[in-house]
Amino acid sequence: MILLNGRDCRESLAGDRALAYGDGVFETLAVVDGSPLCLEKHLERMRRGCEALMIESGGVSEFENDLKALAFDDLNVLKLAITRGAGGRGYRPSQSSLPNRLTSTHPWPYRSLPLPDRAWICEHRISRNQALAGIKHCNRLDQIMASSEWPGDDYLEGIMLDDQDRIIEGTRSNLFLKAGNEVVTPDLCESGVAGIVRELIIDQLKDWQIPCVVGDISAADLHAAEEFFICNSILGVRSISMIGETFTFDSTTLCLELDGALRGARYIA
Amino acid sequence: MILLNGRDCRESLAGDRALAYGDGVFETLAVVDGSPLCLEKHLERMRRGCEALMIESGGVSEFENDLKALAFDDLNVLKLAITRGAGGRGYRPSQSSLPNRLTSTHPWPYRSLPLPDRAWICEHRISRNQALAGIKHCNRLDQIMASSEWPGDDYLEGIMLDDQDRIIEGTRSNLFLKAGNEVVTPDLCESGVAGIVRELIIDQLKDWQIPCVVGDISAADLHAAEEFFICNSILGVRSISMIGETFTFDSTTLCLELDGALRGARYIA
Repeated sequence: MILLNGRDCRESLAGDRALAYGDGVFETLAVVDGSPLCLEKHLERMRRGCEALMIESGGVSEFENDLKALAFDDLNVLKLAITRGAGGRGYRPSQSSLPNRLTSTHPWPYRSLPLPDRAWICEHRISRNQALAGIKHCNRLDQIMASSEWPGDDYLEGIMLDDQDRIIEGTRSNLFLKAGNEVVTPDLCESGVAGIVRELIIDQLKDWQIPCVVGDISAADLHAAEEFFICNSILGVRSISMIGETFTFDSTTLCLELDGALRGARYIA
Repeated sequence: MILLNGRDCRESLAGDRALAYGDGVFETLAVVDGSPLCLEKHLERMRRGCEALMIESGGVSEFENDLKALAFDDLNVLKLAITRGAGGRGYRPSQSSLPNRLTSTHPWPYRSLPLPDRAWICEHRISRNQALAGIKHCNRLDQIMASSEWPGDDYLEGIMLDDQDRIIEGTRSNLFLKAGNEVVTPDLCESGVAGIVRELIIDQLKDWQIPCVVGDISAADLHAAEEFFICNSILGVRSISMIGETFTFDSTTLCLELDGALRGARYIA
């Protein structure tokens, strides 16, 4: 028997392992005029996530059918999730668990707001774990704790470091910096989410023959950089002018070029 | 709009942040003849967990009322959970989220089984994060991955190490080893769950004037130990005779004494 706030609860999701343990994966997409952008790339990442977590991934193919049942505005956020489903109280997954598939639409969050271009440096450190790094799984307390830190609407994003003072990502975005002729984005082998737009930017830079290094970034590297930008599927590519009170960036050139190219290719909204 | 497996979903939990992000805390208790053991200690840990995650903890006091609505067998598992509730698609918690309180009963899992006394060494490493360590939060992919590793019913538990090869805990238990006159249990400042029974054992050892060190444990320490035992609120205190194929432990003396003492005090079932 399950009580939800003291009352008998018959909701099927009450027994879902994502509710109990964050046992699932998810994707967040931009939808423009009814078309989800980069849908195949998102579904492919979700399949890889399911495989890494040993969640049966057959349901991933069903999302395209779900989309037909949904109504869209000109711009929407689409969220897709696969959970391991119901299956016992213990941590050990049951062989008989049937994954659940959740598909939801949400209003576009950035319609009327002029977005700030400052970033906060989060006190909360991102956890390191090679086996979970890169996966967009549903264990997100790090991001929740970090994104609670900054006040009001003055900051676009919080920058997260690991316990070795390496800059890893934003709470909901990947990041790039440009110093001289080189672009650097953090290595995500130990923590972070390997973003779809991050991958598209790496590919675009390669096309343009601009060297892009995937490696460690420290605070010293921020001092040396002239440009810093963040990306995700909803924000697109956004330049940051200032991180904390210490680091400032004068240039937005590459960010604007990338934003234009990815927008032109209909990869971002 | 939310679809669950392709169908319109009106379940209130579909929007819960625990389902999306594992944004909550939980407790697992033994219930003997209708009485939950160590209830106040579990509620107190839950309050501390809520405070650490900045989840409003007022609902914790309501669990005692919930228990009156539940029917119990002679032995049951009771699970209590507080989630941050519904509140937006983004990681940042909304000020307007109302926590949800979930209370559920489950059958006692160890009724007919003779339990094995061997433990497995998990390949999956436990994540390190000082801000989340100790809390029984709902981000449990580490434990899920690790508890998927061992085959069948030959092992009672899997032992988890961190990325620095320190032995931290079992997938669902804390652990102790005894070498000579000293008992050691892992330091949980960087990872792991600070268990209620672990705390009771530390107190009991103090009463008995047996030195108990909270510190680092390595594989070398396993070689030197004559006794190894694990504990949680459902298993109680259980001796382990062998870890992997390498480490064997001959003694069960202290474990049996602790089991007797804690059982006598009605701390464990």
